[in-house]
Amino acid sequence: MRMVDIIEQKRNGGILTDQEIAYFIGGYLDDQIPDYQVSALLMAIYYKGMSQEEIANLTKHMVASGDTIDLSSIKGHKVDKHSTGGVGDKTTFIVGPLVGAAGVPVAKMSGRGLGHTGGTIDKLESISGFRVELTNQEFVDTVNKHKLAVVGQTGNLAPADKKLYALRDVTATVDSIPLIASSIMSKKIASGADSIVLDVKTGSGAFMKSLEDSKRLAEAMVTIGNQLNKQTVAVISDMNQPLGFEIGNANEVKEAVQVLQGEKIDDLRELAIELAAHMTVLAGIYEDYETAVQALEEKLDNGEALACFRDFIEAQGGEASFIDNFDLLPQSAYKIAVKATATGYIHEMAAEKIGLAAMHLGAGRATKDDQINHAVGITLKKKIGDQVEKGDTLAILHSEKDQADQVIDIVRSAYTIQPDKTKPRQMIYEVVK
Amino acid sequence: MRMVDIIEQKRNGGILTDQEIAYFIGGYLDDQIPDYQVSALLMAIYYKGMSQEEIANLTKHMVASGDTIDLSSIKGHKVDKHSTGGVGDKTTFIVGPLVGAAGVPVAKMSGRGLGHTGGTIDKLESISGFRVELTNQEFVDTVNKHKLAVVGQTGNLAPADKKLYALRDVTATVDSIPLIASSIMSKKIASGADSIVLDVKTGSGAFMKSLEDSKRLAEAMVTIGNQLNKQTVAVISDMNQPLGFEIGNANEVKEAVQVLQGEKIDDLRELAIELAAHMTVLAGIYEDYETAVQALEEKLDNGEALACFRDFIEAQGGEASFIDNFDLLPQSAYKIAVKATATGYIHEMAAEKIGLAAMHLGAGRATKDDQINHAVGITLKKKIGDQVEKGDTLAILHSEKDQADQVIDIVRSAYTIQPDKTKPRQMIYEVVK
Repeated sequence: MRMVDIIEQKRNGGILTDQEIAYFIGGYLDDQIPDYQVSALLMAIYYKGMSQEEIANLTKHMVASGDTIDLSSIKGHKVDKHSTGGVGDKTTFIVGPLVGAAGVPVAKMSGRGLGHTGGTIDKLESISGFRVELTNQEFVDTVNKHKLAVVGQTGNLAPADKKLYALRDVTATVDSIPLIASSIMSKKIASGADSIVLDVKTGSGAFMKSLEDSKRLAEAMVTIGNQLNKQTVAVISDMNQPLGFEIGNANEVKEAVQVLQGEKIDDLRELAIELAAHMTVLAGIYEDYETAVQALEEKLDNGEALACFRDFIEAQGGEASFIDNFDLLPQSAYKIAVKATATGYIHEMAAEKIGLAAMHLGAGRATKDDQINHAVGITLKKKIGDQVEKGDTLAILHSEKDQADQVIDIVRSAYTIQPDKTKPRQMIYEVVK
Repeated sequence: MRMVDIIEQKRNGGILTDQEIAYFIGGYLDDQIPDYQVSALLMAIYYKGMSQEEIANLTKHMVASGDTIDLSSIKGHKVDKHSTGGVGDKTTFIVGPLVGAAGVPVAKMSGRGLGHTGGTIDKLESISGFRVELTNQEFVDTVNKHKLAVVGQTGNLAPADKKLYALRDVTATVDSIPLIASSIMSKKIASGADSIVLDVKTGSGAFMKSLEDSKRLAEAMVTIGNQLNKQTVAVISDMNQPLGFEIGNANEVKEAVQVLQGEKIDDLRELAIELAAHMTVLAGIYEDYETAVQALEEKLDNGEALACFRDFIEAQGGEASFIDNFDLLPQSAYKIAVKATATGYIHEMAAEKIGLAAMHLGAGRATKDDQINHAVGITLKKKIGDQVEKGDTLAILHSEKDQADQVIDIVRSAYTIQPDKTKPRQMIYEVVK
């Protein structure tokens, strides 16, 4: 087998066999196949795509390239959740305890990563004392006892994906649905859950801007999961504006707790229940979606989900007292209001700009070595569909500096205010299974 | 400027600026831009193509990446000829002395290269004593005195092209018209001639199989030449069967001499006159194509072209006596006939198979380090349109071994014999200027 023939075959729109994909992934990981041949193949895949079988085979070999987490000592049907990423996404903190309260074990490994705000792990570190590193035994015990644990990623999961991703990043081959789908799914499958629920974001603030592309990505991932014996459901949800009202780290944890306390923060609550419903149905806890939604609404309203959250925080060493007094979370030195300069209705919000503003304040990492400030971030006061008068507060910046003119400008420019009325955005577009 | 942005722009079908192309070529040659980014760009170019301006700019920067030969001490308007390569192509040995006899100085640098038979330089080394390495002064003096000299390539011509070509070869990005056109033209332009005549082969034995692709390549190269101030004409000629009847090294030199002696070896003579006519018109020797053809026919028939050839061979140290006695050329130990196994008319000849058979006999190099045997090769006895009876000789192998069953099979399988009559192939399809 020669790599140049594999490239040529894909270049001409052909289908790669399982053996050819195994050869390319294995050879690349072993440094037998050079970067320059792999990048040419990736570009050919960018244009010519891959069949569902090719994508499943690629994923399978990426999983096999590294460790697979063994969750067999955790009792019950394990369900994992993954979001393709957006601004203000703190659903894990709601969904985890919600399905945990319903009896689904959630053994979640999460990354730090780069971006507008910290990752799940960074956000949890806003909580005083919280430990993101547990021994394997502690991790298993915590899930068995409290149905929920969240730790930093350990093990060498899908190293072939890691190597490929680094190459894609510098060769303009990131935006390829087969490559994105196999990359996400290889890590999820290696993480060892029995079933997977995917939150595929769509819109201006998401990686996938169009509903059509989001659907294609969702379908590709669901097919991979099903072909590799992990039942998978994907929810396509709106990311044309940040999720909820808080963007940052500590303030996102706070907003999640507010939902767990029964507050009706509409879009966030709706998405959390939607994801949790699919997870609990996959786990066999509820018979169908409608039953699940009703039961989960109850668990939010009656405090069961909040109790699960409190137990989980304490089990991982966190001081749970902040749940009853948010002032115990890190607080920024300054609160700066961003005021509207026009009167009308909010038609659009550039979620990416809001994210960028949060990063400028120090909530996220631009490069791996950046430090995150858990106290800073943005609280939105207005979202799409809201009416504003000139001079109204659109958002509040949590800043460590008293001056933040540049950030104010970015946040203000994220809002499109027009005279005519408009409707709030819909949250859930479609479910792919 | 970042290479990843350049790749993305081309990936999306955009046009690269002159500055971007300069950045990429310069950075690649200096090892500042890695192979893996360049191969991704090459694959994007494979799919998205390049505008004529991009191709001309790419060629310009590849020329500028190395030496440019200064032919100013050679008097007159220098015209170079280049063939895109085929089986049995010995036209340089006819065209060179023919236009030399008409007064056009031909200062030709030629390669050895890989392939079915040797390159021009290898073939000339069939002639006892012939020196392919001359000092610059000898080269200039020989052209000034005899209008013709052929030497091995010297200088560091278009090193960026060399580096790119090596990468294309292992990344399935060879078959791209913008990349082929710029590669050929960068070397031709760096070689210093004033005008260029291109022989673009088309058909089963050529790199370009279809007339349409051949035309696109011809047009791309002519446009590059004209944009970079080298008047260029391309002749599209047939390569659905080998050119002439001899394939090898010494035997190809012999066949060229036969044409110079006035023999009517139709396709070869026709192509040589066609190319020579355009060269002499470009050089301003004849007013128009028709006048040129008439004058050149005469120079072949009256021995002027042959005299130029003899002078050139002697000037470069060769023993010209072989011209009057072909037995003085290297001879193989065995002559083996390939017989027809069917009766009918020859409809097709797979030129590539004939070339492969010649390489198996030892006439060409499969790898750089292979040695060429000048004596071996193939003499065709039948070509497309000919009638054959079962048992007739199709071709004669010049072999150093008495057994050549595998090669016989290859040559025989190259012929398609069918009962119905068919016409000989046309030689010249089109002229692009």
